[in-house]
Order: sequence, then C-alpha cells, then structure tokens
Amino acid sequence: MKTVVGFGEIMLRLSPPGYHRFLQANSFDINFTGAEANVCVSLSRMGLKTECVTKLPLNDIADCVIATLRKFGVGTAHITHGGDRLGSYYLERGASQRPSKVIYDRKYSAISQAVREDFNWDTILEGAALLHVSGITPALGEELPAICRDAFAAAKRHRALVSCDLNYRKNLWTPQRAKEVMTELAGMVDIMIGNEEDAEKVLGIAPKHSDVIKGVLDPADYEQVASEIAGAYGCGAVAFTMRTSLSASDNLWKAMLYKDGKAYFSKEYRLHIVDRVGGGDSFSAGLIYAIVEGYEPQRAVDFAVAASCLKHATELDFNLSTLEEIAALMDGDGSGRVQR
Amino acid sequence: MKTVVGFGEIMLRLSPPGYHRFLQANSFDINFTGAEANVCVSLSRMGLKTECVTKLPLNDIADCVIATLRKFGVGTAHITHGGDRLGSYYLERGASQRPSKVIYDRKYSAISQAVREDFNWDTILEGAALLHVSGITPALGEELPAICRDAFAAAKRHRALVSCDLNYRKNLWTPQRAKEVMTELAGMVDIMIGNEEDAEKVLGIAPKHSDVIKGVLDPADYEQVASEIAGAYGCGAVAFTMRTSLSASDNLWKAMLYKDGKAYFSKEYRLHIVDRVGGGDSFSAGLIYAIVEGYEPQRAVDFAVAASCLKHATELDFNLSTLEEIAALMDGDGSGRVQR
Amino acid sequence: MKTVVGFGEIMLRLSPPGYHRFLQANSFDINFTGAEANVCVSLSRMGLKTECVTKLPLNDIADCVIATLRKFGVGTAHITHGGDRLGSYYLERGASQRPSKVIYDRKYSAISQAVREDFNWDTILEGAALLHVSGITPALGEELPAICRDAFAAAKRHRALVSCDLNYRKNLWTPQRAKEVMTELAGMVDIMIGNEEDAEKVLGIAPKHSDVIKGVLDPADYEQVASEIAGAYGCGAVAFTMRTSLSASDNLWKAMLYKDGKAYFSKEYRLHIVDRVGGGDSFSAGLIYAIVEGYEPQRAVDFAVAASCLKHATELDFNLSTLEEIAALMDGDGSGRVQR
Amino acid sequence: MKTVVGFGEIMLRLSPPGYHRFLQANSFDINFTGAEANVCVSLSRMGLKTECVTKLPLNDIADCVIATLRKFGVGTAHITHGGDRLGSYYLERGASQRPSKVIYDRKYSAISQAVREDFNWDTILEGAALLHVSGITPALGEELPAICRDAFAAAKRHRALVSCDLNYRKNLWTPQRAKEVMTELAGMVDIMIGNEEDAEKVLGIAPKHSDVIKGVLDPADYEQVASEIAGAYGCGAVAFTMRTSLSASDNLWKAMLYKDGKAYFSKEYRLHIVDRVGGGDSFSAGLIYAIVEGYEPQRAVDFAVAASCLKHATELDFNLSTLEEIAALMDGDGSGRVQR
Amino acid sequence: MKTVVGFGEIMLRLSPPGYHRFLQANSFDINFTGAEANVCVSLSRMGLKTECVTKLPLNDIADCVIATLRKFGVGTAHITHGGDRLGSYYLERGASQRPSKVIYDRKYSAISQAVREDFNWDTILEGAALLHVSGITPALGEELPAICRDAFAAAKRHRALVSCDLNYRKNLWTPQRAKEVMTELAGMVDIMIGNEEDAEKVLGIAPKHSDVIKGVLDPADYEQVASEIAGAYGCGAVAFTMRTSLSASDNLWKAMLYKDGKAYFSKEYRLHIVDRVGGGDSFSAGLIYAIVEGYEPQRAVDFAVAASCLKHATELDFNLSTLEEIAALMDGDGSGRVQR
Amino acid sequence: MKTVVGFGEIMLRLSPPGYHRFLQANSFDINFTGAEANVCVSLSRMGLKTECVTKLPLNDIADCVIATLRKFGVGTAHITHGGDRLGSYYLERGASQRPSKVIYDRKYSAISQAVREDFNWDTILEGAALLHVSGITPALGEELPAICRDAFAAAKRHRALVSCDLNYRKNLWTPQRAKEVMTELAGMVDIMIGNEEDAEKVLGIAPKHSDVIKGVLDPADYEQVASEIAGAYGCGAVAFTMRTSLSASDNLWKAMLYKDGKAYFSKEYRLHIVDRVGGGDSFSAGLIYAIVEGYEPQRAVDFAVAASCLKHATELDFNLSTLEEIAALMDGDGSGRVQR
Repeated sequence: MKTVVGFGEIMLRLSPPGYHRFLQANSFDINFTGAEANVCVSLSRMGLKTECVTKLPLNDIADCVIATLRKFGVGTAHITHGGDRLGSYYLERGASQRPSKVIYDRKYSAISQAVREDFNWDTILEGAALLHVSGITPALGEELPAICRDAFAAAKRHRALVSCDLNYRKNLWTPQRAKEVMTELAGMVDIMIGNEEDAEKVLGIAPKHSDVIKGVLDPADYEQVASEIAGAYGCGAVAFTMRTSLSASDNLWKAMLYKDGKAYFSKEYRLHIVDRVGGGDSFSAGLIYAIVEGYEPQRAVDFAVAASCLKHATELDFNLSTLEEIAALMDGDGSGRVQR
Repeated sequence: MKTVVGFGEIMLRLSPPGYHRFLQANSFDINFTGAEANVCVSLSRMGLKTECVTKLPLNDIADCVIATLRKFGVGTAHITHGGDRLGSYYLERGASQRPSKVIYDRKYSAISQAVREDFNWDTILEGAALLHVSGITPALGEELPAICRDAFAAAKRHRALVSCDLNYRKNLWTPQRAKEVMTELAGMVDIMIGNEEDAEKVLGIAPKHSDVIKGVLDPADYEQVASEIAGAYGCGAVAFTMRTSLSASDNLWKAMLYKDGKAYFSKEYRLHIVDRVGGGDSFSAGLIYAIVEGYEPQRAVDFAVAASCLKHATELDFNLSTLEEIAALMDGDGSGRVQR
Repeated sequence: MKTVVGFGEIMLRLSPPGYHRFLQANSFDINFTGAEANVCVSLSRMGLKTECVTKLPLNDIADCVIATLRKFGVGTAHITHGGDRLGSYYLERGASQRPSKVIYDRKYSAISQAVREDFNWDTILEGAALLHVSGITPALGEELPAICRDAFAAAKRHRALVSCDLNYRKNLWTPQRAKEVMTELAGMVDIMIGNEEDAEKVLGIAPKHSDVIKGVLDPADYEQVASEIAGAYGCGAVAFTMRTSLSASDNLWKAMLYKDGKAYFSKEYRLHIVDRVGGGDSFSAGLIYAIVEGYEPQRAVDFAVAASCLKHATELDFNLSTLEEIAALMDGDGSGRVQR
Repeated sequence: MKTVVGFGEIMLRLSPPGYHRFLQANSFDINFTGAEANVCVSLSRMGLKTECVTKLPLNDIADCVIATLRKFGVGTAHITHGGDRLGSYYLERGASQRPSKVIYDRKYSAISQAVREDFNWDTILEGAALLHVSGITPALGEELPAICRDAFAAAKRHRALVSCDLNYRKNLWTPQRAKEVMTELAGMVDIMIGNEEDAEKVLGIAPKHSDVIKGVLDPADYEQVASEIAGAYGCGAVAFTMRTSLSASDNLWKAMLYKDGKAYFSKEYRLHIVDRVGGGDSFSAGLIYAIVEGYEPQRAVDFAVAASCLKHATELDFNLSTLEEIAALMDGDGSGRVQR
Repeated sequence: MKTVVGFGEIMLRLSPPGYHRFLQANSFDINFTGAEANVCVSLSRMGLKTECVTKLPLNDIADCVIATLRKFGVGTAHITHGGDRLGSYYLERGASQRPSKVIYDRKYSAISQAVREDFNWDTILEGAALLHVSGITPALGEELPAICRDAFAAAKRHRALVSCDLNYRKNLWTPQRAKEVMTELAGMVDIMIGNEEDAEKVLGIAPKHSDVIKGVLDPADYEQVASEIAGAYGCGAVAFTMRTSLSASDNLWKAMLYKDGKAYFSKEYRLHIVDRVGGGDSFSAGLIYAIVEGYEPQRAVDFAVAASCLKHATELDFNLSTLEEIAALMDGDGSGRVQR
Repeated sequence: MKTVVGFGEIMLRLSPPGYHRFLQANSFDINFTGAEANVCVSLSRMGLKTECVTKLPLNDIADCVIATLRKFGVGTAHITHGGDRLGSYYLERGASQRPSKVIYDRKYSAISQAVREDFNWDTILEGAALLHVSGITPALGEELPAICRDAFAAAKRHRALVSCDLNYRKNLWTPQRAKEVMTELAGMVDIMIGNEEDAEKVLGIAPKHSDVIKGVLDPADYEQVASEIAGAYGCGAVAFTMRTSLSASDNLWKAMLYKDGKAYFSKEYRLHIVDRVGGGDSFSAGLIYAIVEGYEPQRAVDFAVAASCLKHATELDFNLSTLEEIAALMDGDGSGRVQR
C-alpha cells in the first residue's frame, strides 16, 4: 500500500455549538485539526497508508492529538515532542450573510519552535509515495522554511512526489515574505494546489478578469494562471478550487486541474454548507488520491471535487467519506436520497 | 370516534446529533419508530383513535416503546410480548450532496419471530374503521405474510378499510419474494400508497418515462401506474408521493391520488429538510385521515401532502402536526411566518 | 458618549433545542429578551451607552435578567422592583413550511402591574439622546399608556428623540384599543418604525396593493403609508421593514426610510434564517444608531438592514454584531467568506 | 384494577443542568410535575390505575402536561381546561452545604382560578378506591378549599378512601389560614401523611423534643403527634417521614406509620441524593399502594420508605420504580450491585 | 515491547445521560466495550502493545468499533468480519440504593456466530506474551468453547501466558454448562481471576463464610478458594477482587493475589463511584501488566487494585489511567488533591 | 460603597463535561477565571464594588472575558489591551481517588508581557478600600514583580489595605525565585492568606508537625506559622485554610485567622465537592469582605469558611453565593434542606 506523508501543524479547534457567537457560548465543541492532518485523515479513509509528521508538546492534550490521528488510521510514528504549547484556534460558525470567524492562537506553538534536527526526513520518507505540505507550514516559524526545504529535498531523493496547497495565511506572514519563501520551495513541487486568492498573494500570478469578493470567477483566468505556474516552477500538475460564496450557507464549488498543457474542469456543485473549514484540504486529499492511484486528469478533478463536496456537508474539519461514497457522487447521484 | 389500527414493527432509532457522522458520535439521539407507529401517532395528533399492534420483547426498553406510544395518544392494548430483542436502526443524517444513511439491525426482532397465534384479529379489529399495514411488515419474518393475510381478512369481516404503503425494503426481501407476497395481499387493499420506486419493485408496474435517480418525474406516468394498479387489484384509491431530491437538504414534494378513474395532483412544495425519515408515513396518515373523514379527492391529496410537508420540517420520525396546522398550510399559508 | 434609553418588558424565552417541537423537548434553551432590551443590547455592541428601564420581581430569576443586560453592556440603574412574576414566552422554532410558534405567558408580569410612581423619568432621561419604546409597552397593562406618556413628555423636556416600533401584538390588545392609545402617543414620536402589518392595524393606515400573507409587497405602498404617517403625526422619520417570507427558513428582507418627503430603499437580502426572533428590533437598533450618529438617510437604512440581516443569522434574540461587521456587509461583502 | 384519583396542580419545572446555579444556566432541564401527579405516576408504575385531575390552560404547553401523564400511564380524562397559564417553578439543585432552591411562579395558574363547577366529582370518583389530595391544593386559590370539600365528600359517597399529605407551603398561605382550612378537611381524611414540620404548622400539633433544623429527631415525638392527630380527626392511619438532612447530598430517611394505636417504624436508609424533589410524594404513593393492596402496617411502611428511597436516587420528580425494584430493596438488597 | 492479545466480544453500550432512567432518556451516551477490549485499552495506556481479536459485522458501526480501539492504541489486525450484527447492551446507571441495570442485546451477534476457521491462532499469537480471555467468551455461541480451546492451545505452543477472568454471566449460560466448559479450559489457564461470586458458580468452589449480598466478606475464604483452584487446575496465580457494595454510589474495594502458596492482600479503598462497569476488567489489566512486567506479588496486587480504583472514578468502561497515575495512588497519595 | 481592586491574570478554562477524561471529550465546558477575578466576582455578589485589573489581547475572546466580568458586576474600566494571547488552562475534574488535573497554557499571555507603563495605579486605586493580588501575579512575567511593587506602593499612598493570597505555583517559578520576590512584597501586605503548603514554599516558614500529603494537619502549627509571618512582615492579619483531602470527592475544610496575637479557628465542614477549583479564592473573598466590613475576627473566619464551603458545592470557579446564603450557613443551617 502506498504511503502519503503530511507535515504541518495540528491545532485544537474550539467552536461554540450550533450558530452561537463566542459571546453566547458556555461550551466549545472541540477537535484536533490542521491542513495536512486533514489531508492524511481523508486519504486514510480512502484506503491509503498515511503518516502525519508534526511537533507536539508533552502533555495530556498532545496525547489527545495522537489518539485522534490514530482513531482515523493515520500513523503517528514520526511525531516529535517538545516546545511550550499546542496551537489552537477559535471558530465561530457563520450562516447566511454572517461570515465564519477564525481567531488563531497558534503563536509559540511547539511546531513554530521546531528546529531542523527535530526531523530525520530520510527515515520519515523511506518508501513514501508522496509528501504533502501546505503553504502554512513554512510560515509557522523561523526554521520552518529550512525544514520544508530539507523535507522536499529528501522527497526528491526518495522519489516521492511533493504536493503543496498554497494556502496563504495573512496572520502568519506578509505576502512579501510568503513570496520569498514559497517561490523557492515551488521549484520542488510536483502538484501545486491553490484557491482563488492564493496564486496571486503567494506567487504573484493573478487571474486577469476575476473578482473574488464580488463572486466573479472567470474560468479562463484559472487556466492562464495555472499555465504560468506550471511554466515558472515546472509543476507537473496545477489545480485550483473555484468557490463562489453566495453566502456563508450556500456556495458554488468546482475545480480545475491543469496537466500537460490542458485544463480539466469539474462540474459545479451547489453546496448547502454544514462546516466550511477543511474544504480545501479535502480537495487536496482527493486530488492526491487520484494522482497516486493514476486516475485520468478529468476523473481526478471530478473525484477531488466530489470528495470535497461531501466534506462541506460534514461536521468538523475532517472529510470522513469513503471511496464508495465519493464514487457514488462523482458518478452522478447527488440526489442525497436516503441510503438504506 | 373512529379507530385506525396499525400493524408493524417498532424500532429504536439511534442517530448521531446534528450532522455528525457515526465515527464522530459520543452519543445517539434516540426515539422509537416504525412505519405504522408513525401513521398512528400522526392520526392520533389529528384527533382519531388509534391502536398500534406489534410484538415486543419483555424488558425495560420495550416499556419505553409503550410509553412513547401512550405519550402521543396511541393505544397499546393489543401489543403482544415475547421474542428476543427490539429491532433498531442507526441513522446518519445527510445534508447537501451527502445522503442520509440507514443501517438496520432488525434481524431476529420480536416481531420477526411472531406467529399467527400471537394476534387475535377479530378482537383487535372490533369496531375499527381502517387497518394500516406497510409493505415492510410481511417482509419481516416467515409467518408475517400469513399474519398479514389473517389481519386483512379480519378487516374485511369487520368492514374496516385496508390501507397499504408498499414501502419496498431491499434488505428484507428480494423483489421476487416481495412480488409473490404483495401481489396476493394487494387484492385485499382498498387504499394503495407508494412512492416513485415501489410500484415497479413490488408490483412490477413501472412508470414509463420517469427516472428517479436523475430526478425526472413525469406526472402522466403516475396516472398510468395508478390506473394499472387499481385495475389489477381493485383498489378504490391509489396514491403516489412524488419526491424530487435536489439534495439531502432540499426536495420538491407533491403527490397524486387516483380515484374513480381520475388523477388528482397536489401542488408542489419546496422542502428545506429537517428530518426526512417518516416523510412517507406522514403522507399515509394524512391520506387515511382524509379518506376516513370523507374529504373530496382533491382536498384529500392536498391535505396529505401538506401534512407530510410539515413532517419534513420536524425532528425525528413522527409528524406531530395538528389539524389546524395542516389546514393552515393547505389553505395557502406556506410563508412560515411566526405564529404568536 | 450618547445614551439611548429603552423602556419595556423583558421576558424569559424558553425554546426546545434545534427544530424540536414542544412535545419533544426534555430541556429548553433560555435567554432573557424583550423588544427594547434587544435594541439596547444591539446599540451597546455598536458602541453607544444604553440604559434599559423595566420592572422586575425580586427573585433570583430577575437577577439573571440584570446579569444578562450587564453582560452585554446595558445599564440597569433605573430598573425598578416589585410585582409578582417575570413574564415568559415559549418559542418553537419553525423551518421550511412549518412556522415558528410563540406562546406567551406574560400576563400578571411585574411590568404589567407597574404604576406611574415606579419611574422618575426626569432622572432617567437626564442627558439621554433618545428614548426607545415599542408599541408593546403601552399594551402591557392598565397604567402603561400613562407611563409611556410620562416618558415621552420627559424625553421632549430633555430634548431626547423618541423612537417607536409599532409592533402590534394581537394577544395584548384589540386593534381598536391599540389605535386609541397609539394615535395619541404617535404625536410625540420622532422616529416611527413598523413592519408590513403594523401601520394598518395600529394607525389604520394601510398599504394599497400589498398582500402580506401572499408575499406581495409593493414598494410604492410603503412610501404612501410613510408619507401619511409623517403627515398625520409629524414624525421626522418613518421606516418600514419589508419581509417576504418564502418559508420559515428563507426570507427576503429589505427596508425603506422615509425622511423629508423622500423614500430611501435599501438593497434586498436573501436570508437563510438561524433565528427569526428579534429581527425587527435589530433593524430599529441599526436605524437608531444611524440617526443618532447622523448618517445620511440612504446610509442609515442600508446600515439598519445590514445590521438586522446579521441578526437573522445569529442564535437567540440579540444582535451581537459590531460596527465593523455591519459595515463590512453594508459595504458589499455578503459572501459570508471565512474571516481569519 | 383499583383506581386512585389525584387532584392538584401540575407545574412546569425549570432547572439548570447539573449543579449549576441560575446565573450560570443557558438552558433549563424541564419536566411537568405536582404533588398528586407524582403520586399518580408512581402508582401507575406500580400497576394501579390512576387518574390525575387538574385544570390546565388551552395551549401547546398544556398538551405537554397531558402527554407526560399519558406517557407514564396516568389517566387524563377528567382534566378541565381554561384559565390563563400553567404554573411553573424554578429549581436550583443543591449539593453539600448548599441547599436546593425553589422559586415558584404559580400565581394566577389555571387551577388557582378554578371554580366548583369545573369538576363533577361524582363522575370522577365513580369506582375509585382512593382520592389523594395534598395540602397544597386547598391553598392554591379562593375556591379550592370548597372544591376539596366537594371532592372529599364525593369520595365518602363513593366509599373511596381519602389520603392527604399535609405538605405545608408558606408561600401559598399563612399557618393561620392553613389551620383554618385543613383542620376542617382533616375530619374527612382516612390516611394523613406529613413530614417533620407539617403537623405543627398545619394542625398545630408539635413534636415535643425534636429540632428539625438541628437534625434532632426523636421517634417518640412522632408517635405522640400521630396519636393526637388520629384522635382529633379520626384518621385511620397517620404516617410521618423522618428526614435527617446531613447535607443537600446526604440524608438519613425513615418513616413511621401509626395505625390502630400502634406505631410502626421502618428501617433507616442513608441516601446519596440524586434529586430530592418528589421524595415525599413517592412515600405517599408507596403508602397508598400498600394500604390499597392490604399490606400489614409494618410491611406498608417498609414498602413506602423503600419506594421513596429509590426516588431520591432518580432524576426529576417522578418515582419510576416498579414493584419488583421496590420489593428487592425492601427485602434487603440495598447493595446497589449491578442488575444484569 | 511485549504484546498482550485479548479475545472476546465488543459491544455498543447505550446509556441514558447522568442518572436518568431508560424511560426518561431522549439520548444515549455511547461507547464500544467488552471485557477483553477493556483489558487491552488499559494495557495499551500503561504502555504495552495489545491486539484485540473479535468478529464484527461489515458496516459503519463496526468501523466505529475499530476506530475506538485504534484511538486507544489497541491493534485491530486480526479482527475478522462477517455475521449479522454488533451486540449491544443498555445500561442505566444506579445511585445510592438504586442499582445499575444492564439489559443485554447481544444474541445473534457476529462473534456468537463465529466458527473455528475464523481465527488463525498461530498467526495471531506469534510473539505474544499473554492471551487474555474472559469467561464470557466461551459462553457466547456454540463454537466458542472450541475456539477458546484452539486459542489456549496455540498460546501454549507460543509460550504465551493465558489469563482468564471467570466473569460468570447468567444470561449466557447455566452454571452447569459453564462448569462443563470452564473446568476444561481452566486447566490451560496460568492466571485465574474472579470476583466474589464467580468461583462458586463457574468452578463450584465456594467461599465458606462469606455472604456477598449481605456484604459479609471473609478474607480467609478467599485464600481457601484460591488455593483449591490453584491445586485443581495448576494455575500459577489466582486473584480475587473483593467488593463490598455499600450502595451503588459507595463501595469498598480490595483484592487478593494467591501465588506460590501464599495470599497477598491489597489495602482496601473506599470508592465513590463514577462508573462501575469495567471495574473488574481494569483489575485484570493491572494484574496482567504487573505479572508481565515481573512485579513482586504484593506490588502486583497493589498495582492492580490501584489501577481499578482509578477506573471506578472514570466515565465509561475503559480505564485510561497511565502508569504514573497508578503508581502515584499505589505509593500512597489517595488524597485526590489537584495535580497542576 | 467600598471598592476592592483585584489585579491578576484571567484565563479561559477548558474542561471535559462531567467526570470525563481529556481523551474522552468531544467538547469542553468553558469559563473565564483567575484568582483575583474569582475574588472580585464573589465580593461583587456580596454587595461590594469591585474592579478587576488585567491585560488582555484585542480579540473576540477577550471580549468574552470582559462580558463575563460585567455579567457578575465586576468593573472592567482599568483593563489594558495588547499582547499576543489569552492564557488558558485545561481541567480534568477528579473524583474519588482520581485527582483533578490541571494543564496550564498560560505562557506568552498578554499579562505575562505587561510592562509597568501599562497600569496607572494612582488612577486605578483612587478611592479603593483594598487591593488584592495573589502570589501568582508576580510570577507571571519579567516585569510583574515591579508592577506589583508599584501597585502595592500606590495602595499605601491611597490608604487602601493590601491583601495577598500566597498561592504558590510550581510551574511558574522556583521556590527560590518565589521567596526572593514574595519576601520583598510581603512587607507591604496587610492581610496574608495561604493554604497548607504555601507558607513554607514561598516564605520558608514551615509548620512543624503537619504532613499535608498524609493529611495530618496540626492546628497548633498554623498558629505558629502565622505568628512568625505576622512578626516578620508586619501583616495585621494572617489566615490559613486547612484542607484535609479524604479524596477528590470528599474534603474536610476549616480555617484559622490570626490577628493581634490570637488565633481564631472556624468550625470544620465536611465537603462533598462539586468543583474544587476556586475554593481558596472564595475564602479570600469572604475574609476580605469580613475585614472591609469590620467583622470581629471569629465572625470573619467563620464567614470566610462558610462562603468557601458554598463555593465547593457550586460549578465552575466563581462563588456566586449571596450574603444571605453565607449567613444562613454560618449561623448554623448546614442541613442543605430545600429553600422554597
């Protein structure tokens, strides 16, 4: 069985139940999540072997992180321990015109204090098929760009593919610093994934006619941007998710995969959203699965979009959909009829 | 006051709260439900006298079943006891493109082990206006077809109407066995109810142009199928619900009642679904009420659809709507404005 | 900082969790709310100083009312104590075609037993910028019309504006009695607010072409009604909210502000509703804020509608939106995208 | 099967979850309860036929009351409707040295507004074995003493026993008024039940050496008081519960039954309390059951104390224990070992 | 690291929240549990490698079982699939004199339908240090005694110790059948564990002076019984837990380990019980750990009792205590002081 | 009305519901708490005016802190904003022999980054009667000792008393550093409060015969220690709480106040614990109230112990008891009988 390795931060998510605002909460629903952990859990549910690499403090809450990964079948053999704290984020779930709100408390987290010696990438990537790292990871701390470089280089040595979801986070770094770091790393990325804002902010390659805030998304733009990225960094595959936010409750959702000079567009779904967070990660997982399993490009993007479509209808950050469930949707049954 | 008798299985329903998947649950919301019990509860809320006949094991959980029926005004005088266990089912509530999922654990239930001697139908149906049995009941166990036959025959003797919701369940029997049993029973049914798939699977009478999965439903088809059923089995009334599943969250919903050679179509509602399960049963209850109370066919189907429309906006399997609430919707106020 | 004073009843709201009906509840979600308290909380969140004036019994539950107001920054210095009980209301949350249902238990409440001596309006309104009273308050008890008259007169003496949301409640009084009382009070009102039914029922001024139940709302009608009210009672500003109830789950929502002979219409939002109750109050709060802060009429009505739009997407009766959140929506971002 | 009729108020109980104080609650656990309803539910669980007579308003919340009684097998055929509201009470559950706190909101309830014409006692008591009324009922409203007199007199006509739990409530009337009313009614009572404070406050007959607050309870006192009551009012049986409150969490609990000139004492249990409310009512139910079923006095008081012992270990006001469960405890197994 | 293998049934546990009775529940707290799974989880938390062997149906609920085991670090590599259903049990938590109540619904479970071919014991026990099977397992179905024999024999071949907790269950078999099966298996058991009732019912060896129901437990009896068992079956170690049930809330708890002709008694703890279920399994786990790790007998029994003491203060069936936590208690700190 | 000012950290407390361990939680109950905030809330409930001074980050979660303080009547006028994050702590509630467990995540909190310029103590303490600071505050960050010195000096200038609860926290500093800082500050303290471990660890003054872990507490020791402290630092009052931890569920609790050369001991209570955290703070609040209000020493210590006794029976960290409730317990009613 092929192994996919994810590397990044895992945080405690704290969210008021239902659609309550922070000020109304007497309790927080919790789970443990992070861009790469989300990808690993999703791939594990699809049937791949996965390992999630991170750095955690040494306490009972970090034990909960590990138990969570294990529960969903994700390997934890290469997690390193140390540092001061587990990062967390507060999430207020939006609805209709009221947007979801995320307040990060991830500064000083164990992984942000990681050093290059914490990870032995040759051991970790032994036999791996793919290494996935989001654009959040190199932004987390001082040594993280170097650690990512180490990881990417080791992946190359072990003939593992490298996938990267650009995932720009303005709280973690400036566009300038992001560009500096990411443009260097991009040269080692085989599968580059982004949403409608990332490419511009991180790589400085902007769609020409689209206006994300206004909900104007021009498919041609995406092809152009993907083609530029593929050209500039030699990425074998470039994919973009294309979200039209009608409101916090209703979104349109599709994606494009650019491969070998050609753009493949998925169908577009209208999503009635249960939990928006982790939507992009579930797309990445779907795409990685499809590529690792050798799907044709059109089927790959269809699969990835169907997978993430189901994620948006699931509570919390993980996509728990199975291959069968994703295939059923991809193959046309979006009717949501009761399965008995 | 007229009495309606329902006969069938009552199960424990176990469902994760909200839109959580099974894997995410630390608790299950519970209730006790079954096709005929759902019909009885709904009729009792509308003001009819009802008796629910079933077989239950002898333990505290069976006591909960009886307490639940009593709570909603349903008679429990003819419930018989014995057998090994109460059947149950697990329900994962779907949303958007993610379908609801039902996992049955009803094998070996008390009622599946019932024998003809368990029920004295002449006593049970004394003075009844109508007997309702879904197509699930004869599929539950070996002697159940014979028990149903006994019940239907007794109903005839007591001049009670017999209504039957076809309700094909592929986990319980094969289409072949279903046809064998149901075509025999159908000859004793006065009011035959089905949804878009049942007629074909159970009675072998298919709509000509509709494609349920693709959401293509041709009204003319329904008239044709109903007319064939009425002809073949001498049913005085044949009704079909017509659901267009846009997604697990949004459905279109209407129905047709075929009576005296004529088809009556209700208006179509767009449903934003709270709980989909029990939707068909609430239609049956509405139709039974309307027929027992002598409504004109058009009003009957309008009433039944309005009733079930409210059910879809209610938690759990029971339709708790009152006559006034149904009438208000049927008579045109679907605005959902706050009632003070 | 300018102070706004609200005067009216605060009740305990009791509602089954989620979309459960009363019959299904084992617990009630609670909060403390009332038309004017809702306005005060919203204004306090926007940054104004507020005082909520009411009469409460002397017990631990009344302490909860005071703690709630304090929590959200509303002053409680002029609350008077006495009387038998705190009023309450039961709320069953609707969905789709099933309407929300309110059952009041507010009779014999402390405030309904209030007498003129309970409130020293000159002290209360010292330095106030505005006094807000809904049309519910004078309907609560025998001396309430006189108490409102005292309050309005004192407001005039202290050069505070008077705003009034007509808010007709058929359980509290007849249209005839409402007209009798309100037409007298209306002469002292500077800012008159109403929804699509109030003007006709309370002031006898009807829209000509609109049919609320059928969802037919003609904007021209609103201008005409507002102009008549402004003329008849000398109100400097008249505002109407215009709700099209597609269902209990989905509404269209906009408003009109009539000022200096001109009608200003907001844009219309499509709301996916989390909690409908308090929607009107959040509009009043938005409008009061805008007027007190000297917004231009168009901006005022845009702000008020944006504010109440966010309220509909928030649990419970209070609008907890901040200035920044309202401004973001008003200025065009209704996409509901995650705010990180 | 023998029928026991209870007459009194049923209220909505509202309590913060767990050991939270009112100020900490975001929700209230609810149930519907009253002294006589509690007795009826308990008797119904033991296997007797019961009818609960009360007056309820006409609304959805009153429907919940009826559904609750029905759920537990209590008849509701003689409930009358009308009046303004359902009474309620707020309960804060105590622990250790912190006492439970009850805040009543029962004024103006439907039953407090009842008139003699509301109840036809000859119909109600047709065939009844016993009528149970607590000392709360005559305290509820102006006509209630007369209604109780009517009921007691009809019981005599129908040869039904009359049982009364003195249950003095200082919020409802003064000791003086209580004495006035209760001393008259006492002459018609066959089974008089009280706790350690009632006899003195209601009938003016005080224990000589006990000090309730200090937890000093002298058994001899109880015999003396019971003997005086039996003598003064001709009650065939007089029973006292004897509670030593070590704290809100731990109590000692026993009782005495005085019959034919002799006092029978139960054993004493040490209770670790789950829910203290309804403890006295469960004793009354146990005693009524034992007397109606003809138990010997010693067995009767043992049964009643064992029954109420189980109640204290059960959530909410109802004692849901079955005959078997009570017998197991009475016959010596207080070990609380798991029953498989 | 040493591996311990457990073999037995895993069930879904369904329990009303808090101290509610079945009749009061709207939801059930859930978890997945079984005697041997409990032992494995506890050992895994202590740091051993474990594998839990069972048979599960093929559905989403069985996936939850596997995810639960994985979460707590238990291996699932040898679980076999097939059969009709997952067994379950309903648990009503007792308090004070009200006992906990268990209602089993485990008949027809997948494991009860297991056949010898389902398990390849030589593969499973490759390298195992110990095999643990409770006396429940051979009682589950027709082929289970033979399967256990296969397993025990393979353990011998692989030089793994065999431990067995007698755990008599009267619902599963008669004492006669239990004796028949267990006396044969006992000859292969190295570590025999029982509570105060098991030895007599299963092996026919009774304590001479103790009366469990009355709470009279004579330590000398235990030594005698253990010595007889060790003699008769050649068990190297025999251990008994000794529970004095003061009530469902308070127990005394100690144990004895008999080894090499000598009895070692632990100190006795007074337990205030959070969740009683799984208490015996946590003792078995503690003892197994101590023996596998080579603790001296006195330290072994002290460790096992301290471990199970902590279990009784933990929700649900699993003992989640770590080595450090158990050692702290064993070494004397039972003060329960806050650990910061 | 006299004002008491508290200065210290406020954190988010995250705890699994009921007695679940961290590994079992899907949600955390939350509240905002800190030693001095706890004191302020308690004093505010008793009727004093309070101000809580701290430093908070600028985000929605900090808004929740302020709303919480306001809710309970605590002033927030002098809270300063800035810094990276709100500190938090995870609490697993213990029971029986299983201790409660606290995991702090307070490093890098806003207040730990505070500088002397953040607080203008002359403004803050204008008119204050007392300043309360726990020994935690100077341990939080580099400049905190200096800030405390500033505050204490300003208190002296404004003739406000200074009270200090030693509250040693081993995670924050070493005993050596604690002694260094605290012995300097102690010279400015008027009321010194400690528990059984603090005096030794912080001031190096040890009880001679007591052994806290073993639960051996010798009253004479406390007098000696208090006398030494009073002598060394000139504290007018020295108080010690004396807890005997029988288990996490049951404690004995009393205290001593040393004043003018004499020791006053309270009675001892046996506590059945609901929530242990904040117990010491509630004693401090009680003592401060008593001293500020001029109670005699014996009454002061009785009041403080009664207050904290009620806290232990209350959920979460705040003592919400009123003067009346505390007086009732102090004056002898510890029976926990229902208050109606």
